Amino acid sequence: MAEKYVYMFKEGDGTMRNLLGGKGANLAEMTALGLPIPQGFVVTTEACTLYNKSGRVMSDEVKNQIDAAIAKLEQIEDKKFGDAQNPLLVSVRSGSRASMPGMMDTVLNLGLNDVSADAMAKSTGNPRFAYDNYRRFIMMFSDVVIGVDKHKFEKVFSEYKEKVGAKEDLDLNGDQMKEVSEIFKKIYRDDQGRDFPSDAKEQLYEAVCAVFRSWDNERAFIYRRMHDIPYEWGTAVNVQAMVFGNMGDDSGTGVVFSRNAATGEKEIYGEYMMNAQGEDVVAGLRTPKPFAELKDENPRIYDEFVKWCDVLEKHYKDVQDMEITIERDKLYFLQTRNAKTTAAAALRIAIDLVKEGLITEEDALMKVDAKQLDQLLHPVFDEAALKKATAIGKALGASPGAACGKVYFTSEDAEAAAERGEKVILVRSETSPEDIRGMQVSEGILTVKGGMTSHAALVARQMGTCCISGCEAIKLNEAGKFFTLGGNTYKEGDVISLDGTSGVVYGEAIGTVESEISGDFATFMSWADKSRRLGVRTNCDTPEDAQKAIGFGAEGIGLTRSEHMFFDKERLPKIQVMILAETTQERRKACDDLLGFQKEDYAGIFKAMGGLPVTIRLLDPPLHEFVPKSDQEFEILAKLTGKSTTELKEKSHALHEINPMMGHRGLRLAVSYPEIAEMQTTAILEAAIEVQNKGITVKPEIMIPLTCDTKEYNFVKSVVEKTAKEILSKSATKVEYMIGTMIEIPRACMLSGEIAKEAEFFSFGTNDLTQMTYGISRDDAGKIMVDYLERNIFEVDPTARLDQIAVGELMKISVERGRKTRPDLKLGICGEHGGDPSSIDFCHRLGLDYVSCSPYRVPIARLAAAQSAIADKRGEALVSIG
Amino acid sequence: MAEKYVYMFKEGDGTMRNLLGGKGANLAEMTALGLPIPQGFVVTTEACTLYNKSGRVMSDEVKNQIDAAIAKLEQIEDKKFGDAQNPLLVSVRSGSRASMPGMMDTVLNLGLNDVSADAMAKSTGNPRFAYDNYRRFIMMFSDVVIGVDKHKFEKVFSEYKEKVGAKEDLDLNGDQMKEVSEIFKKIYRDDQGRDFPSDAKEQLYEAVCAVFRSWDNERAFIYRRMHDIPYEWGTAVNVQAMVFGNMGDDSGTGVVFSRNAATGEKEIYGEYMMNAQGEDVVAGLRTPKPFAELKDENPRIYDEFVKWCDVLEKHYKDVQDMEITIERDKLYFLQTRNAKTTAAAALRIAIDLVKEGLITEEDALMKVDAKQLDQLLHPVFDEAALKKATAIGKALGASPGAACGKVYFTSEDAEAAAERGEKVILVRSETSPEDIRGMQVSEGILTVKGGMTSHAALVARQMGTCCISGCEAIKLNEAGKFFTLGGNTYKEGDVISLDGTSGVVYGEAIGTVESEISGDFATFMSWADKSRRLGVRTNCDTPEDAQKAIGFGAEGIGLTRSEHMFFDKERLPKIQVMILAETTQERRKACDDLLGFQKEDYAGIFKAMGGLPVTIRLLDPPLHEFVPKSDQEFEILAKLTGKSTTELKEKSHALHEINPMMGHRGLRLAVSYPEIAEMQTTAILEAAIEVQNKGITVKPEIMIPLTCDTKEYNFVKSVVEKTAKEILSKSATKVEYMIGTMIEIPRACMLSGEIAKEAEFFSFGTNDLTQMTYGISRDDAGKIMVDYLERNIFEVDPTARLDQIAVGELMKISVERGRKTRPDLKLGICGEHGGDPSSIDFCHRLGLDYVSCSPYRVPIARLAAAQSAIADKRGEALVSIG
Repeated sequence: MAEKYVYMFKEGDGTMRNLLGGKGANLAEMTALGLPIPQGFVVTTEACTLYNKSGRVMSDEVKNQIDAAIAKLEQIEDKKFGDAQNPLLVSVRSGSRASMPGMMDTVLNLGLNDVSADAMAKSTGNPRFAYDNYRRFIMMFSDVVIGVDKHKFEKVFSEYKEKVGAKEDLDLNGDQMKEVSEIFKKIYRDDQGRDFPSDAKEQLYEAVCAVFRSWDNERAFIYRRMHDIPYEWGTAVNVQAMVFGNMGDDSGTGVVFSRNAATGEKEIYGEYMMNAQGEDVVAGLRTPKPFAELKDENPRIYDEFVKWCDVLEKHYKDVQDMEITIERDKLYFLQTRNAKTTAAAALRIAIDLVKEGLITEEDALMKVDAKQLDQLLHPVFDEAALKKATAIGKALGASPGAACGKVYFTSEDAEAAAERGEKVILVRSETSPEDIRGMQVSEGILTVKGGMTSHAALVARQMGTCCISGCEAIKLNEAGKFFTLGGNTYKEGDVISLDGTSGVVYGEAIGTVESEISGDFATFMSWADKSRRLGVRTNCDTPEDAQKAIGFGAEGIGLTRSEHMFFDKERLPKIQVMILAETTQERRKACDDLLGFQKEDYAGIFKAMGGLPVTIRLLDPPLHEFVPKSDQEFEILAKLTGKSTTELKEKSHALHEINPMMGHRGLRLAVSYPEIAEMQTTAILEAAIEVQNKGITVKPEIMIPLTCDTKEYNFVKSVVEKTAKEILSKSATKVEYMIGTMIEIPRACMLSGEIAKEAEFFSFGTNDLTQMTYGISRDDAGKIMVDYLERNIFEVDPTARLDQIAVGELMKISVERGRKTRPDLKLGICGEHGGDPSSIDFCHRLGLDYVSCSPYRVPIARLAAAQSAIADKRGEALVSIG
Repeated sequence: MAEKYVYMFKEGDGTMRNLLGGKGANLAEMTALGLPIPQGFVVTTEACTLYNKSGRVMSDEVKNQIDAAIAKLEQIEDKKFGDAQNPLLVSVRSGSRASMPGMMDTVLNLGLNDVSADAMAKSTGNPRFAYDNYRRFIMMFSDVVIGVDKHKFEKVFSEYKEKVGAKEDLDLNGDQMKEVSEIFKKIYRDDQGRDFPSDAKEQLYEAVCAVFRSWDNERAFIYRRMHDIPYEWGTAVNVQAMVFGNMGDDSGTGVVFSRNAATGEKEIYGEYMMNAQGEDVVAGLRTPKPFAELKDENPRIYDEFVKWCDVLEKHYKDVQDMEITIERDKLYFLQTRNAKTTAAAALRIAIDLVKEGLITEEDALMKVDAKQLDQLLHPVFDEAALKKATAIGKALGASPGAACGKVYFTSEDAEAAAERGEKVILVRSETSPEDIRGMQVSEGILTVKGGMTSHAALVARQMGTCCISGCEAIKLNEAGKFFTLGGNTYKEGDVISLDGTSGVVYGEAIGTVESEISGDFATFMSWADKSRRLGVRTNCDTPEDAQKAIGFGAEGIGLTRSEHMFFDKERLPKIQVMILAETTQERRKACDDLLGFQKEDYAGIFKAMGGLPVTIRLLDPPLHEFVPKSDQEFEILAKLTGKSTTELKEKSHALHEINPMMGHRGLRLAVSYPEIAEMQTTAILEAAIEVQNKGITVKPEIMIPLTCDTKEYNFVKSVVEKTAKEILSKSATKVEYMIGTMIEIPRACMLSGEIAKEAEFFSFGTNDLTQMTYGISRDDAGKIMVDYLERNIFEVDPTARLDQIAVGELMKISVERGRKTRPDLKLGICGEHGGDPSSIDFCHRLGLDYVSCSPYRVPIARLAAAQSAIADKRGEALVSIG
């Protein structure tokens, strides 16, 4: 028996994706549910492979099977293909296993010819409609299927309109459209040297072959090569009967949700329009009616819809977003899919579905996009105002939320404006630690350079402040205090708005509204906590942030960057003295001056965390980040140190590095200047003793950053250990502390077996690990990422979502080797990826103990961790999330 | 039967390293050869383990065996331990399997007490000598074995000398020395509460136990942890009879080479001094005599020496460097080792040894340190002048050779001085591509910053110019045109000298002499070429360098950096126009202007290489390296482009990157601006066609730099391939070209299986790969490396010698995955490691096809490759080389 190359929708189901393609399998699934959908059939991916392998000839077997399917379809639809009375028209669409751009576009109204167009004009009583469809079909078929240049048609059409004095297409009547279709057929004849095919079957074979060939075109070839899609997969072809909502007052179109997508309330919610097609609703020619009114206008259709709506919700176990068409008083479903809703609605619906017994708590957890929780924690734009606004630029959405304010270009100006009560947007080429105070008072931050883990992005996320980074299209004049973007110039004090989620910049004021956290949120998060295995900690540097993070459910601190505490006005000169010290003695003295401050900082955090573990990273950044820049600063230092400003400037200059990210930073500082590590260890242990004496258990985890070598780590560990033992030997209080390291350099991954001999914990610093593994600086990634995402080279920014291929393999190597040496090695992640759902899923599968992220991402991490645990238990891959 | 814990030298041999330690095994080996060496015995490493495991008590068994060994030694030496007449004195030294600092120092003259010192005074007729030895022994034993503070002895000794009016030790006579020894014994008694041990056996047991305990001290513990030496190894103890060359005119000492170490001539060569000890020769109290004179002075001893000298050369099959002592007309060998010689001597000796039938050609190849060949290709200091010179600083020996000249601080000043006929040393904080012309005219280059692969180091090695980099101790005032180092200030025009091999800076003129390449060199290198499997290519950017490299034996070009051709005065403005272009159209026009130059460059190189393969890397460095800096440059560009200087400066500023090494460079440029890759490909193929038409085969290998992703590589490969096909389709000439990539980013190593599907060759860019794997910038490595080498964290600089642990594992992963996908994948290395012997050995074992290095390193690479192949064939590890 011959192979089966053609399946009626009725013959398939949702599992037959490989053979029928994604679209075909979905149409079959809906048919199986009994839904009224325009029927049709699928020519399989195997037919495509056969066609392209056998010299691009369609076999008679395939043709015969298509003919048989058309015959069945004619029977179902009670119409006849190419008929002069009641013609069957079809759409033809490509549909491969994976969604693939570069494949053939849709051809509508296939089956039209002179006689069937005439029949359509008569049956609809609307010749203009019929011939408009016909001339469109001729052009679409000629262009998409045959490859005649579209512009030839467009040019002639413009000339025709001019000739008859028509401004728009709508000004043409039926006769004129008919005349256009005649002219179009002539264009085809002149170009191809033969008549436009009037035989419906011939049209169909040609269209199916064109879809098959499009699998083999260059765009598809490149796309497949880039995405590793095997040539053998091939594409299927979907042939489906046309239905029309614009056939009169007994026809219509609608878009309907099974529940309210904004609030989550259980009510059918949507719009419809009679005697119209979907496009008309979009074009806004008339105002559609609320769907509820259909109940009065056509209760039979309304009731039928409600019945199917219920079937779909029960089948897909989720709120549905449906497109329908009514043709001559008959209801058709064109599409259904799980609806996109607001975060608040998503939570409510998920909880309601559990209450209705439709899904379990775990199912509910799997339904909500973890990233969407951001909406609940940050301001969002007023929707009405947003619709009217015009975007002037788009860059990286580095920290979510919506912000609106006046632009300022320096930290000082921003502070001054905020003191005057203004709402501020800070615009900088890039930010550095000395901008912290300006960032704190801003509603939003916009930078020209830098990627998803640039300084601005990191700090903004930690503060919960909206931020867009890497907006390279900006021409910034910092001195002149203005910038140009999207053709306009924005001066100091001008108002702009930022969408930190999408990365879109608006050159005008858009109102924002605060999100409200409802009781649903607490219920939902408690379910998440029951399901997850991964711990969730936070990255934070102050007692205030620690409080906030505990409110969001953090179970400890995974990263405290001790250097972030150094930018206070009072402290900065003291650390500058330390940095510019020429001798160990000078440096030791400067460290002594800093000890009190550090101790106070750590004590504050230990108290705020009330017994939860706190990981403190020793001094990490390149020293010259702290170096004085203004003459005034140098003069202050000259007084403090008794050195000349010339001498101090020379020393500062000597600290300059060409690639500071790979320079004298991290534990390299402690190797060169062990006295700094001694001072910090002393501060940590003395603070711990002090707080523990007040009855709060303290569990400091001292973290050595940037390890790339075993001996190097051991050197610094010895310094820390010796100091800690000395401090503890002088006190009656016992403090349980750990010493471990960041794993953030590729070499440390390879050496993890050795390093774990001495390190009690590893924390993956995936920001740096990603930088080094890719060789891409997060500070300079802006332009690169924009180009790479635009050219589809990167699907996602690897600084935002963990690259599971290479960075992931390095982490895997590290985990395996580390745990082999030390089975109870504590493993966490404190890079920014710790707050990204798909990265969290990877961490779960890797067997880490916890993830750590900025306070505002803690709820996202809790949900994502739960989703990973559930998927893991179910043996599923978490393809859909994040 | 009890375990054997003590071996007489006669009972051991060179293979018993684990049991007897390195030193003990060597003494046994020489004894086995029949050499007259002061006899003795070894207490084994197992005795050490036993001691430390059993609560630090020496077992009776060990004591008994030591007693027995002493008895045998007394018999051999015909002396008696602790005797009042003819006392046997011994030295006690530690000696573990691996050489280990932090272990116990030597104790000499053990066995002395009041009576044996008296006997010694009588037998030598020199009481001062006897009691000087005695008081030294008391102090050494008290300090090293017992741990009495040495300063107590030193203080008292000073006071005594002052009291008797002696300026130096030498002013004290025998009686006074005897008095000092009495005082020393009292110090011991006061400190320890018991008398200084007068029993020789007791002294010996104590000393042996002290060596055992030193295995367990903190310094040794840290060292072992750092070097992964198991605690279980333990240390052995060597007990050896003392001999004295200062016992009268029938005694003496000498240092002798079996051949001339400077020229390699076959003649006994050395110095001796009668009635003296080794230290006296070093101290230069008297002038030693040429060893040949001993033939007249004591023909019997001379002949005996010559006989043993011959035995040693035949045994070790190499030129020997020997220390001898004559005690009372009896010859003793204290030590022999393979001699260090000049490179010229090493070649001559190796070739002579082959001629003499002592070794094979392959043995000869294994004897010469490949790195030493550098000496033959670069100037060296005049030895006499060097001896008198004082070092003022030491940093990284970045490019070998010796240089002397006047210091200049800018490229322009250097050029002007060179035109005046001066010899120039260029001193810079760091160099950048625009310094090239200044570097070309300089004898030597000295930089404050940067490591072994900094710009200065790379370019200097390629030019064969001496260079010292990372001299952080320099305080450089570029504006004032002076620097301070070693306490002195050097102004423009002052003369300094640089040793680019050792990294030492001298603040004065030292004459240099050119090395001469003899016929031995050609013979030797031809043997190397017969043995090696690895190909050797060169990294070079000009036809002149290509010529030079072919002269050194290069078999192709492994890396041409196309950007190095852009710094010509005529071309720089044109590339600057390209870089500052705002639109694709502008950029394409600028590329067109560059095409002719590039084509000319490539054609020149293709011709020079006369048919050998040439790998050309597409534009790699961050664009802002080329950006104009001076107002004058901006004005030239303003004229060329019709833009304002303000506009051009803004654009230049926007190109600035924070970490350019991980910024918008490499193939990222080609992704953003494919027109640059198109232009370069066009130039390569058009040049290839032109040269091929002249009858010279051209094999261009187009290399895409900095790949970190498969799609990214494929994107750029498509641009190159499409352009190449277009060019070739227009020509009748066929050109065989390849397209491949650098592997220099950790991620590319992990993805090698995928990348090899599309890449025809890989070239490991281990400079960048090392940077990324360690997270250390080569431009900023100077300070880090100095600190790390000083603290013994790094044994070698990983930018100079390939890190086989992590960088090596990444390369291994890449090779395995790449060859799995494409078994005939061509593999090379073009990082600086390609010229380092141990790195070359690693590349050999990894199965690479070739190494590529700067022209002056080509001979080193040829020899190193041969050594690897021989070692591989012999199943040996190449531990000794490079």
